[in-house]
Amino acid sequence: MPTGSDASDASHTSDASVTSDVETEGMRRALTLAGTPGVPLGPNPRVGCVLVDRAGAVIAEGYHRGAGTPHAEVDALAAAGDRARGATAVVTLEPCDHTGRTGPCTQALTRAGVQRVVYAMADPNPVASGGRTTLQAAGIEVSGGLLEQQARELNAAWLFGLTHGRPFVTWKLAASLDGRSAAADGTSRWISGAASRRDAHRLRGRVDTILVGTETAVVDDPALTVRDDTGRPLEHQPLRAVMGERELPAGLQLLQGAKPALHLRTRDPGRALAELFDAGRRHVLLEGGPTLAAAFLRAGLVDEIVAYLAPVLLGAGRSAVADLGIGAIGNALRPEVLDATVLAADPGEQPDVRLIMRPAQPPTQPPTPRPEDPWRPSLR
Amino acid sequence: MPTGSDASDASHTSDASVTSDVETEGMRRALTLAGTPGVPLGPNPRVGCVLVDRAGAVIAEGYHRGAGTPHAEVDALAAAGDRARGATAVVTLEPCDHTGRTGPCTQALTRAGVQRVVYAMADPNPVASGGRTTLQAAGIEVSGGLLEQQARELNAAWLFGLTHGRPFVTWKLAASLDGRSAAADGTSRWISGAASRRDAHRLRGRVDTILVGTETAVVDDPALTVRDDTGRPLEHQPLRAVMGERELPAGLQLLQGAKPALHLRTRDPGRALAELFDAGRRHVLLEGGPTLAAAFLRAGLVDEIVAYLAPVLLGAGRSAVADLGIGAIGNALRPEVLDATVLAADPGEQPDVRLIMRPAQPPTQPPTPRPEDPWRPSLR
Ligand SMILES: NC(=O)c1ccc[n+]([C@@H]2O[C@H](COP(=O)([O-])OP(=O)(O)OC[C@H]3O[C@@H](n4cnc5c(N)ncnc54)[C@H](OP(=O)(O)O)[C@@H]3O)[C@@H](O)[C@H]2O)c1
Ligand SMILES: NC(=O)c1ccc[n+]([C@@H]2O[C@H](COP(=O)([O-])OP(=O)(O)OC[C@H]3O[C@@H](n4cnc5c(N)ncnc54)[C@H](OP(=O)(O)O)[C@@H]3O)[C@@H](O)[C@H]2O)c1
Repeated sequence: MPTGSDASDASHTSDASVTSDVETEGMRRALTLAGTPGVPLGPNPRVGCVLVDRAGAVIAEGYHRGAGTPHAEVDALAAAGDRARGATAVVTLEPCDHTGRTGPCTQALTRAGVQRVVYAMADPNPVASGGRTTLQAAGIEVSGGLLEQQARELNAAWLFGLTHGRPFVTWKLAASLDGRSAAADGTSRWISGAASRRDAHRLRGRVDTILVGTETAVVDDPALTVRDDTGRPLEHQPLRAVMGERELPAGLQLLQGAKPALHLRTRDPGRALAELFDAGRRHVLLEGGPTLAAAFLRAGLVDEIVAYLAPVLLGAGRSAVADLGIGAIGNALRPEVLDATVLAADPGEQPDVRLIMRPAQPPTQPPTPRPEDPWRPSLR
Repeated sequence: MPTGSDASDASHTSDASVTSDVETEGMRRALTLAGTPGVPLGPNPRVGCVLVDRAGAVIAEGYHRGAGTPHAEVDALAAAGDRARGATAVVTLEPCDHTGRTGPCTQALTRAGVQRVVYAMADPNPVASGGRTTLQAAGIEVSGGLLEQQARELNAAWLFGLTHGRPFVTWKLAASLDGRSAAADGTSRWISGAASRRDAHRLRGRVDTILVGTETAVVDDPALTVRDDTGRPLEHQPLRAVMGERELPAGLQLLQGAKPALHLRTRDPGRALAELFDAGRRHVLLEGGPTLAAAFLRAGLVDEIVAYLAPVLLGAGRSAVADLGIGAIGNALRPEVLDATVLAADPGEQPDVRLIMRPAQPPTQPPTPRPEDPWRPSLR
């Protein structure tokens, strides 16, 4: 776990038992608000807040819209105005106690006359934590731990960043039955079916960065825009990034538009991730090609693998992953399978299989116990 | 459909409507008898027979135990003796009207005084058919078409042989996520998990021939024996065959024991299948390697693909299938997926995915409408 002792966790659980049904309902709503689609991940957590009065009626709602915008509590308080006096604030994260780009939420809540605060997860960020104690010192009743797991899942990538100091990396691949990600002539559209491609767009919609190698950028000339199920581009698009040392031709689709792709002029996966982390990025989707994927795997910098396997045979063409330095079958990389799903095919197509996996230790490192990180970003 | 007109089929269906519950029960039992495990497929169909008296009681049962042994009807009649007089014979295949290694069953039924015959499927074999007419001419009441589809499925490979004049070919492969069937050093045990291997043994138990290339025979030195779920070898083992021109070293496991493997000294898939067909083989399981699989695929001689995909990454090593002459993604081989199943993993292992597919037209042939063959051998 990223922060907090077991003892504080246990106290949250016992806290939760005194919360009412109204507060549980409010927390569900706050979680939904926090996960509002299109809210850019950025370096901040997703947070939602609902204010309820003593009779259990909802007074106001709010959520955080990304770095530089008001925190969820402040957003809800602004909507409530005077009606916040005596209310209970139901919020997905322990209110912050720190002055960043906005003032501390503990202060805003106290000033508004809120009587009780119920939160889902404690703030693991050492700079922002302490809200619970400050609120209690101000005479406000505080209860933590309500629907904590859901709040953690919502902020899995953000939590991962706090513990690991780098973005969470999901490697997405589409491969034929014989493991090829392109045909002999380099063509790769489409290996997988339309259902997989829609699913991949939903995956893209959950990350804040899409990363490809220079070769894929040049050969495929992809746009890497995220579309919803109806094919419409999302309002908030993830950052697009290309990694590799060569110059990129100016005509590439990735370099067009208001927000051209970021070119990371390095072949070092660790350095690329550090640069992205510093730019506020918390969840990188590695979309290939095989060379880049192998580099990240060898460096132990893949945290999740999402594979779309298409029932297609090619017999030749580029393999889905380049050399990993594995000689014998005993040294094969054997990821843990978190989910295996047969995706229902569109009419006239065949079903693909989607595997979601967590890599075991890379072969280049001695096997050591993995840090405990059960908060992998959920994909839906 | 391999034989018979639509008209005769329609008459079978209407026949079936007058059969009794006792007869339907009897037919289910006859189908079970016909499918008795361990009965070698060989060039003959699987057939079962149940004799019931007028009161609906079972008098005797019988089934065919392979070429050279009594037909199911004769087997049941022998067990019944005089009690067959006035009985109804419930049999999974239209009784034969032809003198092969045994006399015609029509004659045996007539001589025994059977009064009524109910069968599942008409005999599509031109040499043996005509039983229905002969029985009716002898004054016996005849009804066909009861549980016909089940009987067809039981004899799918045999039916395929009648229409196509060659054995049905199932290609089985085990591959990593990146489509490799062996690591860089040639080791391939094990890519897939124990659950897949047990499943593959069940598949082997449904065929009459297992075929590998000389390279697999030499490099892997497999025994290719079929074991049941407890690991015990089956009593009736399929024929083991090796294909390729080179001499085989005498020490190979395949060449040991009472029934050493058949060496087909050819590289021509069509010729190898013809030889196996002449030897009474009807269902060949192609177990690799990639070179042999590609040769059969290119020749359009694969009728079914069973793929075990393991969540394993190798990054190097032999691909699951050799060159198929496919250049661009548009020409990829896109088989029809009949079944996609995530196999529950044994403790400590990860789940494999099993795909059962029917190939589309091979890329080397112009796309023509496929012959209708809905009687693919069932795998369980
Ligand atoms: N089916 C799929 O899921 C999928 C997805 C993506 C791509 N593809 C296919 O993959 C093919 C491209 O594959 P690829 O492997 O050549 O492309 P790639 O991985 O996209 O790019 C490789 C290039 O990235 C740069 N690079 C960055 N970091 C590197 C490192 N650590 N080690 C080595 N090089 C590094 C190098 O170029 P510099 O000289 O610029 O440094 C290298 O040539 C295309 O045919 C594309 O269609 C398929
Ligand atoms: N994971 C799996 O499912 C699986 C299954 C089987 C094998 N394997 C692996 O596959 C590797 C062996 O692969 P492989 O492809 O070399 O072996 P293979 O297909 O078993 O045998 C190839 C040999 O078969 C002969 N042959 C027969 N018909 C041919 C044709 N039409 N065209 C060309 N050659 C023909 C040739 O030898 P002659 O000179 O004798 O004619 C050829 O060298 C081993 O490492 C094994 O472990 C994996």
